[in-house]
Amino acid sequence: MDERLAKRFGKVLKLRRIDCGLSQEELAFNTDLHRTYISMLERGIRQPSLSTIFILAEGVGCERESLVKDTRVG
Amino acid sequence: MDERLAKRFGKVLKLRRIDCGLSQEELAFNTDLHRTYISMLERGIRQPSLSTIFILAEGVGCERESLVKDTRVG
Repeated sequence: MDERLAKRFGKVLKLRRIDCGLSQEELAFNTDLHRTYISMLERGIRQPSLSTIFILAEGVGCERESLVKDTRVG
Repeated sequence: MDERLAKRFGKVLKLRRIDCGLSQEELAFNTDLHRTYISMLERGIRQPSLSTIFILAEGVGCERESLVKDTRVG
């Protein structure tokens, strides 16, 4: 796993979630993902699969490619 | 795993790879991924993680978000 990439993605996700006014608990509830898993994603400890990327994008109300697009590396 | 999503992604990947004039073997070599894994991705049997999405996008010479953007569901 590319840790730097996961960390960048986590930051993007967190910013989007906060922009939406959602807590981790609320995003977890809306997406049927575990709150602990969302916390790990935001800290870059886990990285999402394709389907999780789609679920999260919907959860924070953005286009499916936005989270990937905003994850800049280097 | 969302099978339909994985199948759509696989089709997008395959089209891009063929557009680039690459065989599965060549894409595997360029990306350091296993040819069998690329075959499974293209058939929608496996779905990629975030870092694999980045690696594949680079391997087929497109923007990091393109493969996700082109994966339309429904």
